Amino acid sequence: MKQLPVVHSKGSYTIWVGHGLLNRAVELAAVGNRRVVIVTDNHVAVHWLDPLRAAFSSPTTLVLPAGEPSKTLSTVELIWQHLAANGARRDTVLIALGGGVIGDMTGFAAACWMRGVDFIQVPTTLLAQVDASVGGKTGVDLPDGKNLVGAFHQPAAVLIDTDTLDTLPGREFAAGLAEVVKTALIEDERFLDDLEADADALTKRDKVVLEEVIARCCNAKARIVQEDEREHGVRALLNLGHTFAHAIETSAGYDRFLHGEAVAIGLVLACRLSERELGLDPALTARVSALLKQFDLPITPPADIDPARLLDAMRLDKKHAQSGWRFVLLERAGKATVREFASPEPVMQLLGDPNRSW
Amino acid sequence: MKQLPVVHSKGSYTIWVGHGLLNRAVELAAVGNRRVVIVTDNHVAVHWLDPLRAAFSSPTTLVLPAGEPSKTLSTVELIWQHLAANGARRDTVLIALGGGVIGDMTGFAAACWMRGVDFIQVPTTLLAQVDASVGGKTGVDLPDGKNLVGAFHQPAAVLIDTDTLDTLPGREFAAGLAEVVKTALIEDERFLDDLEADADALTKRDKVVLEEVIARCCNAKARIVQEDEREHGVRALLNLGHTFAHAIETSAGYDRFLHGEAVAIGLVLACRLSERELGLDPALTARVSALLKQFDLPITPPADIDPARLLDAMRLDKKHAQSGWRFVLLERAGKATVREFASPEPVMQLLGDPNRSW
Repeated sequence: MKQLPVVHSKGSYTIWVGHGLLNRAVELAAVGNRRVVIVTDNHVAVHWLDPLRAAFSSPTTLVLPAGEPSKTLSTVELIWQHLAANGARRDTVLIALGGGVIGDMTGFAAACWMRGVDFIQVPTTLLAQVDASVGGKTGVDLPDGKNLVGAFHQPAAVLIDTDTLDTLPGREFAAGLAEVVKTALIEDERFLDDLEADADALTKRDKVVLEEVIARCCNAKARIVQEDEREHGVRALLNLGHTFAHAIETSAGYDRFLHGEAVAIGLVLACRLSERELGLDPALTARVSALLKQFDLPITPPADIDPARLLDAMRLDKKHAQSGWRFVLLERAGKATVREFASPEPVMQLLGDPNRSW
Repeated sequence: MKQLPVVHSKGSYTIWVGHGLLNRAVELAAVGNRRVVIVTDNHVAVHWLDPLRAAFSSPTTLVLPAGEPSKTLSTVELIWQHLAANGARRDTVLIALGGGVIGDMTGFAAACWMRGVDFIQVPTTLLAQVDASVGGKTGVDLPDGKNLVGAFHQPAAVLIDTDTLDTLPGREFAAGLAEVVKTALIEDERFLDDLEADADALTKRDKVVLEEVIARCCNAKARIVQEDEREHGVRALLNLGHTFAHAIETSAGYDRFLHGEAVAIGLVLACRLSERELGLDPALTARVSALLKQFDLPITPPADIDPARLLDAMRLDKKHAQSGWRFVLLERAGKATVREFASPEPVMQLLGDPNRSW
């Protein structure tokens, strides 16, 4: 088991990574005898609600419908109604048991219930374990866009039980690995080397390797968030591949790609744009593509999506003609940087390249 | 014009108090050339939307239905929809033009839009000017209770234009004076002396006296909030009279009393309870009652409301038999303190007193 301390603007918390953590939740998360409300979804509840519930004396539980389409204000309202109906107070602790959607919504519900109560992240997807559960971003989608409404609200603890990955569908596991590769690219080349060396063990969900890799990702993310909690600067680097990813998700519809799959495609596109703009060594792009392929992830944008549509979806501000395009690019592995383009030309060339390999 | 600087955990802002401030909003609130969204209600819009709108180059405006029943999540959702439809970004500034309801909702909308954007309070009721607009409490009501969902989000500026009081209905003006009296009781006896001396000028809405009194209340509140932004301690003293007031509002229905009216009754009850529990000089209770009466405010709970029902509505936690009753009481003018009772007896005696004067 690994224990990672995180300091933020209002205090500190601990990220725990290991197996068999669920039934030690009271002790690890220092809940004491406070009232506990567990929020989860119907997919996760089948496997992990009972083990977690057993850790507490008399928790109440709320099971929400699984999936990104649930990430709405009306679903968060269900959480608030549950809290009201169960007499939740300022010392009530919310526990988010599930993937990024459950974590984002439960965190937002906690941020706003009586203007802020504690919540604990118990992420059960690899993507949430290496990325979403750390950093305090919470929120919901509006019909007009993802995460338009939310709050910065740091968890009181993060419990990452690698056992929960046993029940994760293969496609979702792979999607999580895309964010792992992203983190390695931002961090340093050695992390990428190690991922290549451990790729086989990772795809077999080796617990020892997973604990190591998850802890490394959490450490990296926590350090970046610590530097820039509210995303005024360096935190933006975590969006490597994400300008492309969001555009692909928007254009293709959110049911076609998992977020991590879109990120995988976005990482390769970001590498290619970095070759053109910052002289990134094409060998790195090749390594990234190969690793993502080994993880069973897509690496090319869908052929049926018009580059002009992607470009439009990536615009910083669709209401203003003056708007530009902002990307996180790589000078080399471990050296990411934010670039803005006033003209769509460089990106259009990349996406519209008739000689492109995809 | 008065200029009061306020420091909080994430920065600072200025409260401006005076007349004719609306058309200086750009300069005073340091909006620069950022996009502006004005949120107001249909009562206030009639009088003050045009003058404020004229201060900005191309603001968008949203007019919501007036009144506490509007203070819901669905109304805040209307604000978010307006922001989305108008391409609001992280540098967009929301302006709350109205009373406490508009301020609370607009502040909450700003707190959560893209996880936090600037908002400016332009309070147009006396109650909002002396109390609600300062301190960063934002939120909405749920069917289960008031302000159950919200955020601490400090304004970027507060513009108090005393001209807006010209159009405030008499009953609402009086309700604001109840919070003024509350502030004086928490602050010091001299403030109470001055209110008594200026009572006549106040009821006539004398601008010079109003500017002075409003600034004094804002100063007091800002100082207390500065000490305890998230209400872990001293900020609770601002709730003098409010345990009773909330119970009266809940029991009588929110359409029967204005909040300030319920506070007026609550202040007298808090004084009487303070006489019994802390030996408060009954002469102070008499002065408070007389002043509130002079302001045309009610000072006795409605005869048709059963004391047992009030008592139940005041319980800290209705789900637990162990729960108690918490009140802010007065040792003397300027010396408030929080007291908790495990037994309902002292309060029951007060409310059920057959010799009570009301």
